[in-house]
Amino acid sequence: MTNKKEIISGIIIIGNEILSGRTQDTNTSTISKWLNSLGIKVQEVRVIPDIEKIIVDTVNELRKKYDYVFTTGGIGPTHDDITASSISKAFNLTYGPHKEAMSLLEKYYKPGEFNEGRQKMAWMPTNANLIYNPTSGAPGFNVENVFCLPGVPSILKSMLGDISHKLVGGEPILSQTINLRTVESEIAKSLSMVQNNNKDVDIGSYPFFRAGKLGVAIVLRSSIQSQIDKCNLEIIKFVKEKNIEIVEKD
Amino acid sequence: MTNKKEIISGIIIIGNEILSGRTQDTNTSTISKWLNSLGIKVQEVRVIPDIEKIIVDTVNELRKKYDYVFTTGGIGPTHDDITASSISKAFNLTYGPHKEAMSLLEKYYKPGEFNEGRQKMAWMPTNANLIYNPTSGAPGFNVENVFCLPGVPSILKSMLGDISHKLVGGEPILSQTINLRTVESEIAKSLSMVQNNNKDVDIGSYPFFRAGKLGVAIVLRSSIQSQIDKCNLEIIKFVKEKNIEIVEKD
Repeated sequence: MTNKKEIISGIIIIGNEILSGRTQDTNTSTISKWLNSLGIKVQEVRVIPDIEKIIVDTVNELRKKYDYVFTTGGIGPTHDDITASSISKAFNLTYGPHKEAMSLLEKYYKPGEFNEGRQKMAWMPTNANLIYNPTSGAPGFNVENVFCLPGVPSILKSMLGDISHKLVGGEPILSQTINLRTVESEIAKSLSMVQNNNKDVDIGSYPFFRAGKLGVAIVLRSSIQSQIDKCNLEIIKFVKEKNIEIVEKD
Repeated sequence: MTNKKEIISGIIIIGNEILSGRTQDTNTSTISKWLNSLGIKVQEVRVIPDIEKIIVDTVNELRKKYDYVFTTGGIGPTHDDITASSISKAFNLTYGPHKEAMSLLEKYYKPGEFNEGRQKMAWMPTNANLIYNPTSGAPGFNVENVFCLPGVPSILKSMLGDISHKLVGGEPILSQTINLRTVESEIAKSLSMVQNNNKDVDIGSYPFFRAGKLGVAIVLRSSIQSQIDKCNLEIIKFVKEKNIEIVEKD
């Protein structure tokens, strides 16, 4: 690993609908790519149900383990939205109407439309920092190193911009992919030798099946470009020796 | 909850490619839906990196907590495939060539093609039970309540059939969805009352945006159809009172 301290994070996906298989989570991939660009590595993702004790315990475990924790889901107006109250409990903070969130939502809705259900979206740890929501009004919030975002992917995406400047990242994690027309077992030994020569590069090997043909994507990841380049050269060397075709890169 | 013991499970998705956001996990949803049909509930999913200590610790934690644990990924021939050796360590079992797996793969490949890389796919806890793979030869395996499957979604799917008969399920979990042309805040209070009247039904509320229109999907889940029906009637009642349109069901 590099000398620079690695900045690591965890993601907590809150929602029975993901666990039941009804909804396909896509927020993990969105958050991970965005964090990579800031030099923050996602070390763990947990998908957990809408159960207060589990949310409290998971948040308390992960916020000690990681520099940053991101939660998605459970901040809407209905009875199954219990993230804000659970986070208050996890941090031992007062759960109640957040002044700024109340005034923000009051302005967002037409007069008379700011009903009880909508007001619930302004209930959270009363001293939380808001995460602004340009898409649909209702804000997310942040307490210490924990950032709470909604579950709806398009709304979540629109809110990341308001968090980037609050995070201290490391070196951005660079990656390069080499797509080969081969199968993993043909290159396993050579690739393992390259990994041993380049311990600071994370080398992944992923079989793919595209347009009726088998292939393997080799993914090199490191925060140092020269390390990726060295690794790349060593791979190209054995690939040529073995007469393996290199296909289009992504 | 029903009197019958709930059968619960955990899923461990092993792979840096999911954590980096490069690959979108779809195996969670596949496994969850299949388990639901067997009456087994997924209580937790963890996505973890290709690091032995983390795999060992996570498997050992989850196999005590849940009736069944399913892992995906890391059972191929390359250096980053460390699931089989990690499971051996977690259970304190000998990691080596599995007799039946070796003979199975030897028959699968043409003479002379069963090279070192391919032989690695037969290395696992030597006394594991195999999970047969009709798609690409290399088997998965099972030790006690832990079932290890590959990461490639199409191969994983093809192997579930060989596990179903090994699992003891509960009552299949039934679900019904009611799609409403409304927003969550309009129904939050009424829905909360229905949930209080029907504590054995898991009621979820999920906003959607389809064909340019907002809506809310109400999902009712229980293993008892009559409970779902009762809940459904109570929802239809308040929906009619509020003049909310019911849109096509899924």
